[in-house]
Amino acid sequence: VVSVGADNAITDVPGIEVGHWTDPHALTGTTVILAGGGAVAGVDVRGAAPGTRETDLLDPVNLVQRVQAVVLSGGSAFGLDSAGGVMRYLEERGQGQDVGGGRVVPIVPAAVIFDLDVGSWEMRPSGEHGYLAAVNAVPRNSEQGNVGAGTGARAGGLKGGLGGASTELSDGLVVGALVVVNSIGRAHDPESGALFGSELGLDGEFESLRAAPAGMALFDRDYGRLFAANPLAGRNTTIGVVATNARLDKAQAKKMAQMAHDGMTRAIRPAHTMFDGDTIFALATGQGEEVMGSAPLARLGAIAADTFTRAIVHAMLAATSAGGLECHRDAFPSAYRGAE
Amino acid sequence: VVSVGADNAITDVPGIEVGHWTDPHALTGTTVILAGGGAVAGVDVRGAAPGTRETDLLDPVNLVQRVQAVVLSGGSAFGLDSAGGVMRYLEERGQGQDVGGGRVVPIVPAAVIFDLDVGSWEMRPSGEHGYLAAVNAVPRNSEQGNVGAGTGARAGGLKGGLGGASTELSDGLVVGALVVVNSIGRAHDPESGALFGSELGLDGEFESLRAAPAGMALFDRDYGRLFAANPLAGRNTTIGVVATNARLDKAQAKKMAQMAHDGMTRAIRPAHTMFDGDTIFALATGQGEEVMGSAPLARLGAIAADTFTRAIVHAMLAATSAGGLECHRDAFPSAYRGAE
Repeated sequence: VVSVGADNAITDVPGIEVGHWTDPHALTGTTVILAGGGAVAGVDVRGAAPGTRETDLLDPVNLVQRVQAVVLSGGSAFGLDSAGGVMRYLEERGQGQDVGGGRVVPIVPAAVIFDLDVGSWEMRPSGEHGYLAAVNAVPRNSEQGNVGAGTGARAGGLKGGLGGASTELSDGLVVGALVVVNSIGRAHDPESGALFGSELGLDGEFESLRAAPAGMALFDRDYGRLFAANPLAGRNTTIGVVATNARLDKAQAKKMAQMAHDGMTRAIRPAHTMFDGDTIFALATGQGEEVMGSAPLARLGAIAADTFTRAIVHAMLAATSAGGLECHRDAFPSAYRGAE
Repeated sequence: VVSVGADNAITDVPGIEVGHWTDPHALTGTTVILAGGGAVAGVDVRGAAPGTRETDLLDPVNLVQRVQAVVLSGGSAFGLDSAGGVMRYLEERGQGQDVGGGRVVPIVPAAVIFDLDVGSWEMRPSGEHGYLAAVNAVPRNSEQGNVGAGTGARAGGLKGGLGGASTELSDGLVVGALVVVNSIGRAHDPESGALFGSELGLDGEFESLRAAPAGMALFDRDYGRLFAANPLAGRNTTIGVVATNARLDKAQAKKMAQMAHDGMTRAIRPAHTMFDGDTIFALATGQGEEVMGSAPLARLGAIAADTFTRAIVHAMLAATSAGGLECHRDAFPSAYRGAE
């Protein structure tokens, strides 16, 4: 009844395309999620240090119904410029909010991570790089790890990265998630290396991992070390997108984004701190089905949460050591089956 | 460095008193959390079907800084009247927002659960019952289970209830939580009965429980059964209060309430659905310390989340079968150590 999509990626949602621009030397990059002809969108910002653009128009009381793309980028607030290049790409193709006379204003919400301490301080994704990411967008994209906006990410003292997951139901519902994990909290138990949320794997997708031990250390339980070790604000955040082929209105898309945050909560401890700008966008491409009732919407939100959790686990599995940061596999080889 | 408070209850926070009014026959009740001379307060409403009172004034942009009490009640929206009785109790004692001439308006935010399908439809807590709950308030109160607002609660198909927990740090910080678990989602794995979040126990507080199995069933992974079985809106919700002796401003109290929701997320799957009115209040009594910086606040929020998770586990452990609903212990004896 429930299974992993063909590519276990957000592009399993029909109409969603993903492209990256990656600078593997400066360790930064930009990721574009194109929403085909436009998707109904919502957002929920739960972190205390967000860097965002075009989020206010997503409020259900506001005018614009559909967005053409979402941009996730490195470069901290400077990286918000990358969305301008995606707007140019879309304007050239006539995609955007119709403002009459054949003219359009592309609607491209964006969120950024702070990655300037990893790799290069000077290199920040610009409009040019956003444009290149859009040019690179393809309908099937399951790249993960140190790619796009995940290139310079760090998560709980390890190398973070970009991850994806998808869920397909036998009734045709598809839910995909794409995340850039750059959290101050840990996605892993610091003693065993067990990845939080890996118990939510579908179809054996996390079978390379040993089961988490019963007595996980979790973290120092007063969180004193965590916030003593990394006390600078604005250097962390987990950002992402959940997408579905369901037909939602804007308020429903916001609810989907809100519930998807629960997937972040189950995968990262702690989440939503003063030092994270945790932001999730929701996109509903809306082919087919009628607008959902409350029960299907609650179900969709629960599935979005689980899919988002799985995307975070994949981000940690796919990241590779870089910029002086060890990836999960290098730091915790014993967390993997077949290791000594 | 981190330990359970003396009573493992919200009243471990100095100045916080708790009182209940309980109707064990009609299976409803009201719980009052008195905040001494007044506490800085915040709230975060994350469920889609809330029943609340005096939450708008808690917005950091609004005037009132301190509340004198928070009420949690059964009776659905009818039960919001119980806060009026608590206002009368406080007015008689001269406690409230000073409006000149020796007159006060007590500020008593409230949230309710729908318990009218359990026990009696007609019996709803009124102002009289709120007043009685306030009269019953005491500085040490660790009652749990089918008491106060938890009397008629149900959670994920089992009997729900009221639970509490507290955390004390060696630097003097105290965090307490009180919760009424009435969720549509489950606090337990439906196959093994393992309680989600019990891995967060401190000082062996959950040693009566067997460790959760590695391959928990979680729930049917498309959530179809869950929302097919209980499709009526407004019948579920998890409500609670987190309190601390730290000194916070209103925005910080809201952040604490926000992060405490992550504790709900880790204990209940799914949380924050269309069918829950999930609402958490935060109270900061503020003796002693200066207003917190960002790092201590993030730490406080993480501790509040974990304390809230533990309170939910305690609610499930303390609830007893009633109203045709089995409690966790009766439904899953094998989840407890020493069982066959």
